[in-house]
Amino acid sequence: MVGIFDSGVGGLTFVKALKSALPNYSFVYFGDTARVPYGNKDPETIKRYSKEAADFLLSKGADVIVAACHTVSALAGDSLRENLKVPFFDVMNPLAETVLNTSKNGRIGIIGTKSTIKSLAHKNKLEECFSKSKGEYSFKKLEVFEQACPLFVPLIEEGFIKRPETKKIIRYYLRDLKLKNIDTLVLACTHYPLLNKQIQSAMGKNAALIDPAEITVKAIIEFIKNNPQLDAKLSKDKQSQFFVSDDPERFANFGKMWLDENIKVQKARFS
Amino acid sequence: MVGIFDSGVGGLTFVKALKSALPNYSFVYFGDTARVPYGNKDPETIKRYSKEAADFLLSKGADVIVAACHTVSALAGDSLRENLKVPFFDVMNPLAETVLNTSKNGRIGIIGTKSTIKSLAHKNKLEECFSKSKGEYSFKKLEVFEQACPLFVPLIEEGFIKRPETKKIIRYYLRDLKLKNIDTLVLACTHYPLLNKQIQSAMGKNAALIDPAEITVKAIIEFIKNNPQLDAKLSKDKQSQFFVSDDPERFANFGKMWLDENIKVQKARFS
Repeated sequence: MVGIFDSGVGGLTFVKALKSALPNYSFVYFGDTARVPYGNKDPETIKRYSKEAADFLLSKGADVIVAACHTVSALAGDSLRENLKVPFFDVMNPLAETVLNTSKNGRIGIIGTKSTIKSLAHKNKLEECFSKSKGEYSFKKLEVFEQACPLFVPLIEEGFIKRPETKKIIRYYLRDLKLKNIDTLVLACTHYPLLNKQIQSAMGKNAALIDPAEITVKAIIEFIKNNPQLDAKLSKDKQSQFFVSDDPERFANFGKMWLDENIKVQKARFS
Repeated sequence: MVGIFDSGVGGLTFVKALKSALPNYSFVYFGDTARVPYGNKDPETIKRYSKEAADFLLSKGADVIVAACHTVSALAGDSLRENLKVPFFDVMNPLAETVLNTSKNGRIGIIGTKSTIKSLAHKNKLEECFSKSKGEYSFKKLEVFEQACPLFVPLIEEGFIKRPETKKIIRYYLRDLKLKNIDTLVLACTHYPLLNKQIQSAMGKNAALIDPAEITVKAIIEFIKNNPQLDAKLSKDKQSQFFVSDDPERFANFGKMWLDENIKVQKARFS
């Protein structure tokens, strides 16, 4: 089974991307909905919570573990990769290279929650990756522009995806990035792909949107190709499972809205 | 000193109401910004967190303790009132009577966060208070209408108070309440008084808005009148203090925005 964890409901967009690419794989999901948001917590706390989530998924039979949360990926990704006994993936690690390969003009935008943006994790990763490069990208100078969009998550969770107020608020947040003439925009929050169309329309055709979940799914597929013994373990016959640390009903509603299917959600107590 | 605690920054509106009524009193505030929001947590957890917050305020010299948070008031208010050795106030307890006295037609609206509304705490309290009454109110039948407004807190925290999108979203949430012909509306969330004017304008002149903080402040004043020995303890010469369990800078920014003054904020670790 593929084990996936997130600080809350956002990781469902990862589940969506995974199911669309690997429809026959079964997975077990843990959303730490009682302790969400992680973004404003200490790095040590995030590491502890992430370790607990990974251990929980292992206890449920996960053979691979994915952190679908950007905060976890930025703050606890490396330590999980080192310490877990199963393959580990996060939504930050294979990202930088793809982003740098996508851009033609080296002007890249990143949007996320306040804490993700404040951490500078994505910006630093891109700059580190670029500084190690040897002229393989199509630009000489990299410029990264960041924008926190704190209202996107509550608007999405409130189901305001297609409302005119949301369109206006998207334009308000993205105005500066548009003026910066970026050609690549990273959606550095698991919720944001749900506003994909609206963000694309606000940015115009010239900006390519990057959904980190899709890149991570590709990395997982690549890894399995090279480790065929995993394929049998991950697939088919098992029932997928969802666990949350708080109200299962609320989570099931998001499942219905975002995955367009009825999911059975169980409570796993973490406090 | 008056000790005030809240799950986060919202209690600053209580501080505002308190300072305006009792400008010479000094206070100590604790905002549990690392563990906010409380609303989606188990009642037992809320009780434990509230006890920790109250103990912290006592350790800082509080002579009276106020829970400025509606979730805490609903779930932990009674147990704190019983167990604390100092006078305790919350934002729910003296509320029902004032609300019932304000209404002429017995049609009352309550707005709050999703979890406050889901708890039915305010509705139950009003109905309980009304069922115990002996014809002293100006209506024969009580009808309570509730509406969760989950976007208000993020909009307020993002400084979107005067923006047109916020006006539209307010109208969207309040449309049903307006159709119900309520004449009294309870702002059952500490953040909401910051949208006072906009909410009043959406509801029209016929609905009286009730800010529970103001009622609690009146109850505190009344209590002190009857316990004059408290007056000296609470007032004047001591420096007011703010503590939070997470980023002090973010809290100080809200202090500047909402209280219109520079406040010094210290970190108190709770995890």
